[in-house]
Amino acid sequence: MPELRKDPVVGRWVIISTERSKRPRDVFVLSQNDKSTEGECEFCAHKEDYPEIFSLRDSSNPERWHVLVTPRKNRLLQIEGEIDRRAHGIYDVMNGIGAHELVLETPEHVLNIADLPLETIDKVLSVYALRIRDLEQDERLRYALIYKNYEGERQRGNIFHSRSNIIALPVNPKRVKEKLTGARRYYNYHERCIFCDIIRQEKEQKVRIVAENEAFIAISAFASRFPFETWILPKRHLCDFYKLDPGEFRPLSEMLKRVLLKIKIGLNDPPYSWVFFTAPFRKKHRPGYWITLEEDFHWHIEIIPQLTRIAGFEWGTGFYINPMLPEDSAEFLRSIEVEV
Amino acid sequence: MPELRKDPVVGRWVIISTERSKRPRDVFVLSQNDKSTEGECEFCAHKEDYPEIFSLRDSSNPERWHVLVTPRKNRLLQIEGEIDRRAHGIYDVMNGIGAHELVLETPEHVLNIADLPLETIDKVLSVYALRIRDLEQDERLRYALIYKNYEGERQRGNIFHSRSNIIALPVNPKRVKEKLTGARRYYNYHERCIFCDIIRQEKEQKVRIVAENEAFIAISAFASRFPFETWILPKRHLCDFYKLDPGEFRPLSEMLKRVLLKIKIGLNDPPYSWVFFTAPFRKKHRPGYWITLEEDFHWHIEIIPQLTRIAGFEWGTGFYINPMLPEDSAEFLRSIEVEV
Repeated sequence: MPELRKDPVVGRWVIISTERSKRPRDVFVLSQNDKSTEGECEFCAHKEDYPEIFSLRDSSNPERWHVLVTPRKNRLLQIEGEIDRRAHGIYDVMNGIGAHELVLETPEHVLNIADLPLETIDKVLSVYALRIRDLEQDERLRYALIYKNYEGERQRGNIFHSRSNIIALPVNPKRVKEKLTGARRYYNYHERCIFCDIIRQEKEQKVRIVAENEAFIAISAFASRFPFETWILPKRHLCDFYKLDPGEFRPLSEMLKRVLLKIKIGLNDPPYSWVFFTAPFRKKHRPGYWITLEEDFHWHIEIIPQLTRIAGFEWGTGFYINPMLPEDSAEFLRSIEVEV
Repeated sequence: MPELRKDPVVGRWVIISTERSKRPRDVFVLSQNDKSTEGECEFCAHKEDYPEIFSLRDSSNPERWHVLVTPRKNRLLQIEGEIDRRAHGIYDVMNGIGAHELVLETPEHVLNIADLPLETIDKVLSVYALRIRDLEQDERLRYALIYKNYEGERQRGNIFHSRSNIIALPVNPKRVKEKLTGARRYYNYHERCIFCDIIRQEKEQKVRIVAENEAFIAISAFASRFPFETWILPKRHLCDFYKLDPGEFRPLSEMLKRVLLKIKIGLNDPPYSWVFFTAPFRKKHRPGYWITLEEDFHWHIEIIPQLTRIAGFEWGTGFYINPMLPEDSAEFLRSIEVEV
């Protein structure tokens, strides 16, 4: 059973894999070789090995799926069992209960979601929303994290079929907690949503806007940690991604595709990651805790092209050094013309 | 003038370099090429270009230094000027005032501090202590961060002469703040230092101890983020590294060298980083804020071998996945015999 352990000082939960077979030397050897796998797309070659959790299918041809959700192999968390939150001396530990799902974004072997048509991106987004609604029913879980690690062309020929991940957890991830706490602190003082205020200031100053449409705005964050770090925010105040109106999926697909194509074309197809920051599940038995959440939190997406290595200094201290002015990042990305 | 900008939601300060010459394409090109530099050690070839901030010299031969502190070229912060903390609309910004110093740990071209004799490591540690004492006099500064990024043999022939960095900041780095806050929360509840309690439990359970001597203990942290993540803690409760007794430097050198040699030999000389977490400077004009700091904080070192890549998921969420049980890490490192 995988385990969740809490750092007793800073309160960060860490997934500790307890696959006993993985001995220290294996981890070391693995890390030395982890770039060397070559060959065909593992998903395309072995589609039948990927069981279905959920799919969107062609109504005229139900044999054909558009988007497929499958459990992650080597999943980090286990869906069966009790959480059993307990002390271990002064430490805190719980069972690694949760879901770890792979969203295959297309049956074709395309690497980058930016190269998929808008209709497909709409479908991927609606699958995210449906999966969150489903996972939220599980009383043990508190958060569904949607993230993507795109490896770029450098990984061509590998198993990196266009895909994203959903991980549902019995705890809130640390950065989510920090965002919730920070947004609440601002709301308590100003009685305004901090993200709405950010959007207002960015629209006034214009210098950090990357792209904008009727429903979404993409900006270079004022205190970006990385060059070309880009946030996509819905203009309409809403704390839950999955409560988007049906008509808001298309402008979001359009904005995602636009930003990702700017990154692909402008920066020569670098690896990138994205994370969706949406509100945690609201449990019926903890209503008080969430009392202002719908007013103070505002869901959004962070997209980070991986151009620079994260140095020891940065992960060790949480203190980041960005060699580029966010205003220059935004100006550069704005100038890249793309066809969406 | 470099700039410090604060993320308005989570409160993280980021150094934004404002070297205007570095245009977006330069950053991109830089990142593509940043592994390709080859050649002799830049420091050994151009020693005369490194001005001295401070040095420890041979008393019998003052021409010869043992440890040299020099300003970082391309320094991130500027020592001259006012902090000028100010609003930029809803955002917070201040001038990038601070010190950025390089500590050259030996005149000889040795790469890894683990390969230096104990007498030299003693000298390096005492230089850290002297630099902190000096930087603390600057009323504008709040923290001196000591860190090292060792690049491993893979970088042989490059400029990576054995060295470490001191960066003195007008703000507390985010992870330092988190540690201070977490330790204070524990102290407020238990009226005991959390690090002293960690040491007590580790000595009872023994399974996460990597090494121990009369004054220091090295452990695999209970909720380690990374395989072989190792913390070194002084057994004596003390919040400031630089207030070590003179007799405590040697056991610390011995412990550092022992742990680093275990990592070098056991894991085939991987890159690693270390960060010293010591208490912030106590300003005379903010005495109340620090009222319990000396009781609730306990300085320590984090050492992280870089065996696995930090994935987008991890930096995006602050939620780490460790593929190895800390107990297995400790057992492995304990088993590696080294000559100190």
